[in-house]
Amino acid sequence: RVDGGRLWGSLMAMAEIGPGIAGGNNRQALTDADREGRLLFQRWCADAGLTVGVDAMGSMFARREGTEADALPILIGSHLDTQPTGGKYDGVLGVLAALEVVRTLNDLGLRTRRPVEVVNWTNEEGSRFPPAMIASGVYAGVHTLDWAYDRTDAAGLRFGDELERIGFKGEEPVGQRKGHAYFELHIEQGPILEEEGVDIGIVTHGQGLRWVEVTLTGKETHTGTTPMDRRLNASLGAARIIDRIETITRAHGEKAVGAVGQLVFAPNSRNILPGKVVFTADLRHPDLATLNSMADQVKQAAREVAADLGIGVAIEDVGAFDPTAFDEDLLADLRAGAERLGYSHRDMVSGAGHDACWVAKTMPSAMIFCPCVDGLSHNEAEEITPEWAGAGTDVLLQAVLQAAEV
Amino acid sequence: RVDGGRLWGSLMAMAEIGPGIAGGNNRQALTDADREGRLLFQRWCADAGLTVGVDAMGSMFARREGTEADALPILIGSHLDTQPTGGKYDGVLGVLAALEVVRTLNDLGLRTRRPVEVVNWTNEEGSRFPPAMIASGVYAGVHTLDWAYDRTDAAGLRFGDELERIGFKGEEPVGQRKGHAYFELHIEQGPILEEEGVDIGIVTHGQGLRWVEVTLTGKETHTGTTPMDRRLNASLGAARIIDRIETITRAHGEKAVGAVGQLVFAPNSRNILPGKVVFTADLRHPDLATLNSMADQVKQAAREVAADLGIGVAIEDVGAFDPTAFDEDLLADLRAGAERLGYSHRDMVSGAGHDACWVAKTMPSAMIFCPCVDGLSHNEAEEITPEWAGAGTDVLLQAVLQAAEV
Ligand SMILES: NC(=O)NCCC(=O)O
Ligand SMILES: NC(=O)NCCC(=O)O
Repeated sequence: RVDGGRLWGSLMAMAEIGPGIAGGNNRQALTDADREGRLLFQRWCADAGLTVGVDAMGSMFARREGTEADALPILIGSHLDTQPTGGKYDGVLGVLAALEVVRTLNDLGLRTRRPVEVVNWTNEEGSRFPPAMIASGVYAGVHTLDWAYDRTDAAGLRFGDELERIGFKGEEPVGQRKGHAYFELHIEQGPILEEEGVDIGIVTHGQGLRWVEVTLTGKETHTGTTPMDRRLNASLGAARIIDRIETITRAHGEKAVGAVGQLVFAPNSRNILPGKVVFTADLRHPDLATLNSMADQVKQAAREVAADLGIGVAIEDVGAFDPTAFDEDLLADLRAGAERLGYSHRDMVSGAGHDACWVAKTMPSAMIFCPCVDGLSHNEAEEITPEWAGAGTDVLLQAVLQAAEV
Repeated sequence: RVDGGRLWGSLMAMAEIGPGIAGGNNRQALTDADREGRLLFQRWCADAGLTVGVDAMGSMFARREGTEADALPILIGSHLDTQPTGGKYDGVLGVLAALEVVRTLNDLGLRTRRPVEVVNWTNEEGSRFPPAMIASGVYAGVHTLDWAYDRTDAAGLRFGDELERIGFKGEEPVGQRKGHAYFELHIEQGPILEEEGVDIGIVTHGQGLRWVEVTLTGKETHTGTTPMDRRLNASLGAARIIDRIETITRAHGEKAVGAVGQLVFAPNSRNILPGKVVFTADLRHPDLATLNSMADQVKQAAREVAADLGIGVAIEDVGAFDPTAFDEDLLADLRAGAERLGYSHRDMVSGAGHDACWVAKTMPSAMIFCPCVDGLSHNEAEEITPEWAGAGTDVLLQAVLQAAEV
């Protein structure tokens, strides 16, 4: 079993970097805080005797050699970046648990046949630079490197430039490091495990996502002097489309979720009808056909509302991943590991996207969930217990012992 | 008649300060650009032999003495501040036309019995610091000075601190300068004069306004993992309230206008349901009872939508002025002046608020409108012709000659 106290200490130390405003973290990708977090992680890896390589997307691979240098490694990890108002565990737990697994192997003096690599994937959250999971996406060949470099944040800064600025544009070609298997531990970010009192979630599938960005073009005019029938009202358009997103989502059954979390008015003055409104619909479903139907209907609704109001509309897909099934054999191993350790477990579907969803395109992959309080995530108040974290990490250790072959 | 070329030159010179991004201006109140604009105006006033006083709200009074020093002065002016994406004439024309009137009196060597004061009212637009017309409001005793100083912008900066920072927190008590009459020339900001080919608008009334700020409190949770029925969805709430604002406005007849120009999501991340959404409804009507009914219904709708979604709601009045009637005698004088000069004219109601609406509480006041292209205002593309500006300024000169008594 792992050292739960040491793991917790590392989590709390990382949480000191990029503090939020309400007890959580703001350590968004490619910020100074992200760099600081990476440097701390790098130091810890060096202390554990690992060799850290960085690829051209900034993803970090900390390698513990195996007895057979040429054997494909076991990759374990997640991400250290956070939402602007993020929690201390979303992603971070997966990276530091992976480090704890390696520290435990060191303590036990265990050599594995296969190398083990602890991975920190760049920009999983996608809140600063959409799409989410961009670095694992390039790793899996879903996006090109150049396309990723050209993504911009709200201030217009380029991903490639910001990566270089923080000193983490590595030399290694992306995707060069192959793997025999990938495991990712993550907090559930939903309420099921806690409510049912179950220790471990065995993640069989990840649901798919579509981020549909809608740009409405109205006409900047005076709110007081412009007659109602002469307005090109983009704020009204946004309101009606958001309401339609709710209706469309509800019409796609219980498993469908959809909402708008990001929206910006320009010029955003109380007495100017906005010239431009930009927002992103976040649509998800575990079934591909249903997900595509949701996205199509939302786009259609946006066009209808805009036509009705006479305003301009442009639609762009700014993020997308299809529903993913994880590897059956690895899932069976995870269940067996949890049982060996006496932890209760259940199968579940992930509501969020994870790097494992892209990595699964390149090697057998599987995920472990641990509970989180009230299912709360993407919130600074996100919380877990040291016991939950320790149990998840124990199961991760079991998986590594088996897959890396002691 | 005034020197239309000189007036146009001054307008173009002022437009150099605080340039916008599309040919207009961003010279918002109490910014460095506002200071620069004030300094240029101050220099022009000194060149015209005027004595400039500044009150504790930063409003500037440039005085030309009359033959009778103790006679109450005639005040003429408007504002030099602009919207973030404002035009070159909204407000600016009224101040520089007033200066042109004084320059013309100088050219003609005319002494008036009453002093004439050219006024630049601080922060008319209210886009950076709501409410609009705050300095003329304090002048008229509608707001207290301390309350005005405590207004904050989106970055949390205080009005009082920013006024001091730009060096325009004057010594004079606000409201100390009394006046015999106030005239304000402004662009119509609506399409009527241009469409009807009329030179001069005689503004008999200003419609009233209510700015109702709505703050919705949702719960920051993950868009992918939070089931639809567990969401406290503030973005959906905002959308539904904005749609209700449209319906409520339409139900109050042809003269009612209502919209939302300003809205902010927090934390504004694509995969977080917003914890907070703040927006302001801008509601206007020429009739007080109807205006109050609109505001009441919008507040009620906001409470209903919030209750329905289980989200928190707080409502604050961040700006309000009642419909205003201007002085009958001055209006008659303005009509007579336009006729003497051979300009066509018509009576009209102002859709926008103006400093004259507050000043009217303290002395007889009246307004003159000149046409603007397509009725477009609060837009960088706002445009007028030198002829329109000259005609309006001619009528202003006539009014001053009569009221100040040559
Ligand atoms: N796990 C997680 O929150 N990932 C961010 C991408 C998503 O919104 O699903
Ligand atoms: N004239 C003008 O645009 N004033 C700003 C206040 C308002 O929105 O009516």
